[in-house]
Amino acid sequence: MSDILKRLKSGTIDVLPHGGLEKKLEQNRPLRIKLGADPTAPDLHLGHAVVLSKLRQFQDAGHIIQFVVGDFTALIGDPTGKSKTRPPLTPAEVATNAKTYLEQVGKVLDPDRLEIVTNSTWLSPLSFTDVVKLAGKVTLARLIERDDFSKRLKAGTAVGFHELFYPLMQGYDSVALDSDVELGGTDQTFNLLMGRFLQEQHGKEPQIIMTVPLLEGLDGVQKMSKSLGNYVGLAEPSHEAYGKLMSISDTLMWRYWLLLGDKTEEEIAQMQQAVVDQKLHPLVCKKDMAHAIVARFWSAQEADEGKVQFEALFQKKDYSQAEEVALVGCDNPLWIVDLLRALSAIKTSSEARRLITSGAVSVDGEKVHDFKAQITWQSGMIVKVGKHRIYKLA
Amino acid sequence: MSDILKRLKSGTIDVLPHGGLEKKLEQNRPLRIKLGADPTAPDLHLGHAVVLSKLRQFQDAGHIIQFVVGDFTALIGDPTGKSKTRPPLTPAEVATNAKTYLEQVGKVLDPDRLEIVTNSTWLSPLSFTDVVKLAGKVTLARLIERDDFSKRLKAGTAVGFHELFYPLMQGYDSVALDSDVELGGTDQTFNLLMGRFLQEQHGKEPQIIMTVPLLEGLDGVQKMSKSLGNYVGLAEPSHEAYGKLMSISDTLMWRYWLLLGDKTEEEIAQMQQAVVDQKLHPLVCKKDMAHAIVARFWSAQEADEGKVQFEALFQKKDYSQAEEVALVGCDNPLWIVDLLRALSAIKTSSEARRLITSGAVSVDGEKVHDFKAQITWQSGMIVKVGKHRIYKLA
Repeated sequence: MSDILKRLKSGTIDVLPHGGLEKKLEQNRPLRIKLGADPTAPDLHLGHAVVLSKLRQFQDAGHIIQFVVGDFTALIGDPTGKSKTRPPLTPAEVATNAKTYLEQVGKVLDPDRLEIVTNSTWLSPLSFTDVVKLAGKVTLARLIERDDFSKRLKAGTAVGFHELFYPLMQGYDSVALDSDVELGGTDQTFNLLMGRFLQEQHGKEPQIIMTVPLLEGLDGVQKMSKSLGNYVGLAEPSHEAYGKLMSISDTLMWRYWLLLGDKTEEEIAQMQQAVVDQKLHPLVCKKDMAHAIVARFWSAQEADEGKVQFEALFQKKDYSQAEEVALVGCDNPLWIVDLLRALSAIKTSSEARRLITSGAVSVDGEKVHDFKAQITWQSGMIVKVGKHRIYKLA
Repeated sequence: MSDILKRLKSGTIDVLPHGGLEKKLEQNRPLRIKLGADPTAPDLHLGHAVVLSKLRQFQDAGHIIQFVVGDFTALIGDPTGKSKTRPPLTPAEVATNAKTYLEQVGKVLDPDRLEIVTNSTWLSPLSFTDVVKLAGKVTLARLIERDDFSKRLKAGTAVGFHELFYPLMQGYDSVALDSDVELGGTDQTFNLLMGRFLQEQHGKEPQIIMTVPLLEGLDGVQKMSKSLGNYVGLAEPSHEAYGKLMSISDTLMWRYWLLLGDKTEEEIAQMQQAVVDQKLHPLVCKKDMAHAIVARFWSAQEADEGKVQFEALFQKKDYSQAEEVALVGCDNPLWIVDLLRALSAIKTSSEARRLITSGAVSVDGEKVHDFKAQITWQSGMIVKVGKHRIYKLA
């Protein structure tokens, strides 16, 4: 297996059909690699970076990315059925979001081999007759095989008839774009296969489908998600990203290496052996991981700075580089929970209670165990929250 | 209950919702009464006349018929799923068929209170966005409740995704037409209710739905259908229609009175009592029925002529008025089966065998029991087939 192929396949779940990617690569031309994206306000995190990294690897091998903003698909509302009343976006909102996407994915992708397209371009002109013809290519049984449809039907949860268009639209995008490869999360397998099927139905060479895993969040348990608070945002300051990456478990570290660190399974196995042989300290390996990821998605310089700051704060206990926060308009003394909130260290009182009662909060080196504590604060004070968050009061 | 309401409700299966028709009629304006029709080449028979008679009653009460030729719906092909490859019609074919419809339904309906429309008029301009919005008003669960969908899904028979549009299109027709009442066979209940539902979803006064039974064919067992051969075509000569109507059983006669004879349940009950009291002979009652139906769908004069011919042939055995048939290019002697076929009296050899062995075939008064009989035929010969078919050789 060639090095390029190895790199492209590393960290993926499925590459279908077997041997298909090899054949596409043998055609020795720039392949069209498709990724569909939700057009609602994007705020990307490292969970999204998994698939973007994979796209980057394709770019580095000379291929072109088709980044499809599903503005037409958004008409359907939330395809998960969680929120049924999400209003359709206006063209102006779509344009704004597409621009924001470009800024953020620009952190990972090479803009010279990147086409950002909106699927209303080819879906909007379709007539009712076209839609009926397209729908006629698929059976109802095949559509309701889709995991979330069949589950919801069984559970008696409403599935809107229009939601059945979602896989059809996404599939038709591949027809319109002549995509060679489409990437997605494992929850997208059905839709990706629909693209393949519809291309065949339209007499076209069907695309290869490639799924990547969902990245576990910092907690190592649930998938990375903004709403769960276990994420590293691509728009966050680099030193915060570095610190958050250092907070993950040693086990999770290998996943991040694989999915975000641009390492093949072989290279990771070598590192793991080195740790077992005590030739590589896990902390050193983790710092390399955090450095590699920050270097990749921010910059090499920011990765260096992140490392220096982390070592000063957590290894040398030198707080001169700690993040300074000004408590503007706060009482003095201040309830510890309000203090933590002013530092943006917590989101809810119950989170504060959990941290305080577990002894994870300290002020100037003294642990605060009392949830009702009033803190008399002053400039230069050091507040630690958990293992990896340190604030200096301005 | 007013006489008009009684007449409109007689012979129906469902009028929904209860009390709804009364309220519509109380509005004292011409109501819009809708009937959807298949745009494929129409060849109407008395089975179709059941619903057309009901429409005529509405016309006679001052209402307007919306006769919807489903040319756009025909895109979907056969909604029963029996034949999946029925090609869509060209606009020219649709125009021709619409004209043929007008000629045939003109035998029943008053052309002055009849609007013939094609549903491509309002469905064809709908965009993909419009379709998604329309589909969004209905849940998948509701759609697959439809009897033939749920049965086919359970049986593992393919249901095309596009077939789900069928009830949606038919329902949207009612939205576009502001229909007050929609009629259909009992197999149409789901689609009729969809029209009601979609009108409500579009903030319109929902239509009343009215179903009429499927008419039993001449055999009294299966529904009247061209392919089963148990039908009376609206385009057939009136004397044949009269003869066929006279061939039905006494029991079936009451159904034909009700569904085609423009009689209410009360009036029929009175006739039935008269038969029981021996004040009315069933044969007289049946001749009245045949006369009433021929008078209604052909003309009063043809009904009179039919009666005279029937009485001459079957009661007075006067064959001078029998239908003359020329045996062109036939051998002489001729195999009895070929003779019957030349008279168009049979369709298959097995039908001939059944008729011959049961003693239902005679030539010049002599029964032919031998399936292999060779008949030496000549002009003026009388051939009887069954009770009500008499041919005279030219």
